[in-house]
Amino acid sequence: MRVAVDAMGGDHAPAHIVEGAVQAAREGSVPLLLVGPREEVEAELERYADAGALDIEVADAPVVLGMDEPPTRVLRSKRDASICVAVQAATAGGADAVFSAGHSGASVIAALSGFGLLPGIDRPALATTLPTISGAAILLDAGANVECRPLHLVQFAFLGAAYARAALGLQSPRVALLSIGEEASKGNDLIREAHRQLKGTELNFCGNIEADDLYRGQADVIVCDGFTGNVALKVSEGMVEAIEQLLHEELSRNLSTRFGALLWRPAFDRFRQRVDYAEYGAAPVLGVRGVCLVGHGRSSARAVRNGVLLAARFAGDDLAGRVGRDLAAAAMPVAPV
Amino acid sequence: MRVAVDAMGGDHAPAHIVEGAVQAAREGSVPLLLVGPREEVEAELERYADAGALDIEVADAPVVLGMDEPPTRVLRSKRDASICVAVQAATAGGADAVFSAGHSGASVIAALSGFGLLPGIDRPALATTLPTISGAAILLDAGANVECRPLHLVQFAFLGAAYARAALGLQSPRVALLSIGEEASKGNDLIREAHRQLKGTELNFCGNIEADDLYRGQADVIVCDGFTGNVALKVSEGMVEAIEQLLHEELSRNLSTRFGALLWRPAFDRFRQRVDYAEYGAAPVLGVRGVCLVGHGRSSARAVRNGVLLAARFAGDDLAGRVGRDLAAAAMPVAPV
Repeated sequence: MRVAVDAMGGDHAPAHIVEGAVQAAREGSVPLLLVGPREEVEAELERYADAGALDIEVADAPVVLGMDEPPTRVLRSKRDASICVAVQAATAGGADAVFSAGHSGASVIAALSGFGLLPGIDRPALATTLPTISGAAILLDAGANVECRPLHLVQFAFLGAAYARAALGLQSPRVALLSIGEEASKGNDLIREAHRQLKGTELNFCGNIEADDLYRGQADVIVCDGFTGNVALKVSEGMVEAIEQLLHEELSRNLSTRFGALLWRPAFDRFRQRVDYAEYGAAPVLGVRGVCLVGHGRSSARAVRNGVLLAARFAGDDLAGRVGRDLAAAAMPVAPV
Repeated sequence: MRVAVDAMGGDHAPAHIVEGAVQAAREGSVPLLLVGPREEVEAELERYADAGALDIEVADAPVVLGMDEPPTRVLRSKRDASICVAVQAATAGGADAVFSAGHSGASVIAALSGFGLLPGIDRPALATTLPTISGAAILLDAGANVECRPLHLVQFAFLGAAYARAALGLQSPRVALLSIGEEASKGNDLIREAHRQLKGTELNFCGNIEADDLYRGQADVIVCDGFTGNVALKVSEGMVEAIEQLLHEELSRNLSTRFGALLWRPAFDRFRQRVDYAEYGAAPVLGVRGVCLVGHGRSSARAVRNGVLLAARFAGDDLAGRVGRDLAAAAMPVAPV
C-alpha cells in the first residue's frame, strides 16, 4: 500500500516530513510517494544513505500553500499544491492513501474534492483519537466544520461509530455528544436538537458528556462541531505545556524535589507521548471515499512516521470501504426527524 | 462587608460550605449571613466551638434547588430557594455580597433578577480567573450564556476589561477572542463578526488567540460564548485529573520512579492548587448591579473560604460600582456597528 506524503505540510517541512516518511519506509516497509518541489524533496532524501534502496518515488508539486492562505484556495488557484497532487495520485491509482501534516483545512477540502463524499454524508469530519484513562476515544469533528447543523452531528456520530468498529474493533461503540451538562436539556440549540435526533437512531447513544469526562473513558465516540472540538483539543495541548512548565517550577524549589525531578522526567516524557496531540499521530478525514490522514502542524519526525504507518494500515484494511459499507447498512437519518 | 453565603450550594452542602464560611469568618473577620434551612445550617454551625463568638447570622431558606432542575425555576416556583434569599438579602441591605457554590445557572439568574443589569449590558457573564504561565487571565463567559450574538461578546469584552482594571489593577488589559486560528478570517460566524466589531472599539483588542494559548499569558481578558468557555474550563479540569492518574501510573513502574514520586507528590499538590478550577476560587457574575460570586460545585471547604474572602474584598472595593462607572465612561457600542 503506497502512501502519498505531502512533503510540504507542517512547521518543519520538508525536513521532518521526509525524515519521518523515510523511517516509515525503512521500519514498516511502506512504499512512498513523496510530493513536493522535486529538487527540494530529493535534496532531503539524499541525507539518508539507504533512501535509494527503499521504495520511494517523488512526485513534483511546485506550488506550496501557506498556512495563512484560505483553504479553499486549493480548489482554485492552487490545484498544483502538494496536498492536491498527493490526493490526485491516490485517486489515479498512484497511491493508496494520503498523509499530510500541513494545513488541515486545505487537506480536508482536497480530500473532499478529490475522493468525493460517501453516500448519506454531507460533510467530511476530522476524527482524532484521544488517550483516555482506560484506553482511547474518538473525537469528531476536530476542526473541519466550524458551523454545523444538528443533522451534521448525527452523521458524524454514524461516521465515528463506523470508524470505531473498523479501527478500534468495537462491536457497539458508545456514542456521546460533548455538552455542558449531562441532561438532554443542557447545551446549546445545536446539541439539544442533535441529542433529540440521536435518541431515535440505532446507535448506542449514551447521551451528553461534559468536557471534564473527555479523558475518563466514558464514551468511545465523542461528537461535537469542529469549533468546539478544535478548542477542546487545543486546550488540552496548552494544558500539557503549562503543566510541564509549572511542575518544573514547583520541582525546582528545593534540592529534594530537584532530585525527584531527575527521576520523574523520564516518566513525564512517556506521559507526554501518550497525551500530546502533536506526538499522538494523525486524524483521518472521515466521510470521503479514500484514506487521508492529517497530522499536527507541529508533528515531529516520529509523529510523521507514525502517521504514515497508520495511513498504510488504514489503506490495507480498506478503511474507507469498510466505513462506507457500515454506513450503507445503517439506518442513518437523511433529513431531520 | 457582610457576605450572604448560599449554604445549600454545591456537592458537599451544607457541611463544606459552612466549614469554609466559618474559616473565612474566623481568619478574615468576614461577617456572614448563612442562608439555608435554618435547623440544618445551625446544626452544622454547632460543630465549631467558636461559631458563637463570630459574626454569623442565619437566614432561613427552606427550599432547595436541585442541580438537575432548570435554573429558571428560581424565577417561578422556587423564589424561596437559598440562592434567591441570599440575593434578596444583598438587595435589601442585609448583606453586601453573595457567594454560592451551587448551580451556576440558577445563581446567575438569581443575581440578574435581584440586582438588575448595568446600563448597556444585555446579558450577565461569568468571569473565571485562569492561572497562566506568567500570572492570570480572565475568561468570560464561563457558562452563563450558551447562545450568544456578536454584540454580547463585545459587551463581555468591555465587562472583562473593566473587571481586569478593577480587580487585577491593569491599566490597559489586552483583550482577545478565543478562536481556532489567529487570523481575523478564522473561527465561526459569531467570532468573525465579533472580531470585526471589536476592532473598531477603544479596547486594547489584540485579535484572536487559539485555545493552546489560554495558559500562555498572551491576553489578560479572553472572550467567548458560554458553551465554548465552559468546555474549555472543563477540559482543563479533566486534563489535570487525567495527568495526575497517568503520571502516577508512569511513576509507579519501577522503584526509582516510585522514590521520585515521594519527592514529587508535594510539588504536584501545590501545582494542582494553582490550576484546579475547584480549588482556584470563585467567578463573579459580571454585568449586574451587585457582587455575586459563583464557586465550583465541587468546591472544598478551602475553596469556599477563598470564595467568601474574595466576595468580601470585591464588596469592599465596590467592584460592581467600579465596573459600572468604567462602562459608563467607555464608548461601548450599543448595537451592531
